[in-house]
Amino acid sequence: MANAVVSQSGGPTGVINASLVGVISEAGKHQQIDNLYGAVHAVAGIVKEDFIDLRQISMEAMSRLALSPSSALGSSRDKPDEEYCKKILDVFQKYDVEYFYYIGGNDSANTCYLVNNMAEKVGFNFRAFHVPKTVDNDLLVTDHCPGFGTAAKFVACALIGDDLDNRALPGIKIDVIMGRHAGFLTGAAMLGKQRDDDGPHLVYVPERPVAMEKFLADVEAVYKKLGRCVVAVSEGICDTDHVTWAEKLAKTKEKDAHGNVQLSGTGALADFLANEVKTKLKVKRVRADTFGYLQRSFAGLQSEVDRDEAAMCGRMAVQYSIKHDNGSVAMRRVGSGSDYKVEYFRTDLSNVAEKTKSLPDEFINKEGNGMTRAFMEYALPLTGGLPKTEYLGTLPRIGRK
Amino acid sequence: MANAVVSQSGGPTGVINASLVGVISEAGKHQQIDNLYGAVHAVAGIVKEDFIDLRQISMEAMSRLALSPSSALGSSRDKPDEEYCKKILDVFQKYDVEYFYYIGGNDSANTCYLVNNMAEKVGFNFRAFHVPKTVDNDLLVTDHCPGFGTAAKFVACALIGDDLDNRALPGIKIDVIMGRHAGFLTGAAMLGKQRDDDGPHLVYVPERPVAMEKFLADVEAVYKKLGRCVVAVSEGICDTDHVTWAEKLAKTKEKDAHGNVQLSGTGALADFLANEVKTKLKVKRVRADTFGYLQRSFAGLQSEVDRDEAAMCGRMAVQYSIKHDNGSVAMRRVGSGSDYKVEYFRTDLSNVAEKTKSLPDEFINKEGNGMTRAFMEYALPLTGGLPKTEYLGTLPRIGRK
Repeated sequence: MANAVVSQSGGPTGVINASLVGVISEAGKHQQIDNLYGAVHAVAGIVKEDFIDLRQISMEAMSRLALSPSSALGSSRDKPDEEYCKKILDVFQKYDVEYFYYIGGNDSANTCYLVNNMAEKVGFNFRAFHVPKTVDNDLLVTDHCPGFGTAAKFVACALIGDDLDNRALPGIKIDVIMGRHAGFLTGAAMLGKQRDDDGPHLVYVPERPVAMEKFLADVEAVYKKLGRCVVAVSEGICDTDHVTWAEKLAKTKEKDAHGNVQLSGTGALADFLANEVKTKLKVKRVRADTFGYLQRSFAGLQSEVDRDEAAMCGRMAVQYSIKHDNGSVAMRRVGSGSDYKVEYFRTDLSNVAEKTKSLPDEFINKEGNGMTRAFMEYALPLTGGLPKTEYLGTLPRIGRK
Repeated sequence: MANAVVSQSGGPTGVINASLVGVISEAGKHQQIDNLYGAVHAVAGIVKEDFIDLRQISMEAMSRLALSPSSALGSSRDKPDEEYCKKILDVFQKYDVEYFYYIGGNDSANTCYLVNNMAEKVGFNFRAFHVPKTVDNDLLVTDHCPGFGTAAKFVACALIGDDLDNRALPGIKIDVIMGRHAGFLTGAAMLGKQRDDDGPHLVYVPERPVAMEKFLADVEAVYKKLGRCVVAVSEGICDTDHVTWAEKLAKTKEKDAHGNVQLSGTGALADFLANEVKTKLKVKRVRADTFGYLQRSFAGLQSEVDRDEAAMCGRMAVQYSIKHDNGSVAMRRVGSGSDYKVEYFRTDLSNVAEKTKSLPDEFINKEGNGMTRAFMEYALPLTGGLPKTEYLGTLPRIGRK
């Protein structure tokens, strides 16, 4: 018998606490695990010996926890180096912690990998397991990541509503969506489309650089055809030189057409794009929104599929840790459409650590301004279903002369 | 027997279509009403004789419609003058339209008022009824407005999540919320608070001008006490000279401390405030989001109370129109807390037309940086209930030396 530590790292998601609940529930079933400690604020908490006793949590609190967004144990952006990992291992040895469950992205997998290797060298019987989480959906090996489905549902619901808003009061609307390097979440903007002319009509992901001229020409073409245009843009959208527009804006001290200089900030990319469209295309009603943190931490809107999978990933980490020395939990898709289902498997930490993945080519359309059917089939089941809506303005008219 | 027209005006809301469903359902029950036409894009559609036949809509479409955000008949920002109203009346006479239901804000009530007066002068038997809607909650007479409860739920859920996000990765977070003149929606940021130290810790509404020095001192005090701070700011926040910061930013050509000039745009206020906090308070982690259109048109997140009331307001407009010549539907609160209930009544169009209301003094705290218990009691029932969450980072520690 030995103790276990669980912790949560990096940016919060809507279901990272469901994974925590999975770990807590499963740990209680295995006699090999004595105490289960929660480290507050991830690795930063471990080195400070900042632990809470997770066996004390009531069933009622556990059910609320599974529904709560963000990291209930707190998080950290620390990336431990060798010295930091040594401190972590010292604390684990001091507290007789032989099981470590770390819920996070590729950096967290790397921390597990480093600490586990170090433990092996000093002959400490230690098992580090990584539980995947990220709204960006950019981890290797696994079919998809817990956290993505819920963020995708948020983005899709936002675009469903925003497109209806744009139908009611037509113009050009630009929405800037999270994901600096991978375009999965931006692609999710398409998932709620019901009608042929539903927006978003254009989607720009970081994987496809786009020149401003091409961007404007795309928007103009849709606007001429439909009298309106809804555009989803990744915050990581880049120019043809592969430098992101956000970086260019942060650096520029030049004045734009109005004599204003761009300010670097959350809303700067959206404001810049809106301004380009407004001035170059001479369209009066142009609006832009940046969805920001809402995408990763909005309360009360989980994908049930995502929540259940996140909880299972937590459970599986504990199960694997009884039989294996280390690993990362991954999912394999074994059915599609209404038969969508996943199987869980263990993969080596080194397969997930550090690296990330991008949208595969078959998910992005040829023009580089939209997503393919293959992407829709991949991503839609992860949202757990999206609301259907009604718009009446396209019904046949009476009495028009 | 005569025909009826229904239409939707101004900015969309999450339940304006529920009011439309209320009108459609109720109109079918009264033999005085023959055809029910939907005017597409409000008054702009009426003058173009752009009508659809609402009797053709299936029950299935009606249930989807009640759940769909934004204005399913399209909307318009036109403010009809006398000539415009004359055209409207001409079309109504041509189509034998004696009943007019207009779902909108104070401008829509005014349009009803103008057209109704004009009809009276020319001896046309005509009944104009206004159905209230606005996310700003700023209409006179009625206790509250359909549309507000759903927007308030969105804002409250956003802040519940954002506060948990800020607990996980502490810093200063600023959220800019809709409402240029009335602070009801910004105040709704407080509604999900569960724990004593939950954010938002500061709330700034347009009704209370605030100097930048006071704003920064407030934020600094919270940050020193809690190590973090979540701030909800109305887009209509103004300086002590009563000029909004948004207007000041739009006008300025001056450079800020970093040599940047502020750009007018959706995100400019948030970026400006974040920049002020970052540079003046020397805090490293400062973030800002602007919620934008999501607040009024997000799909799949209605307040059920709000939806039911919106539908009833539509129904009551039709009922009143059988017995009265004109009017606006209003709500009176007849119970509080878990006994919350409303009664509906008719008020004269002139009581609602043009004017708006602001937050009453008893809803804003003395310091002008938060809401009172009276506001919470007023607004919470309108959301239909909010999710409860769990945060573990404040539990007692084990093992800390």
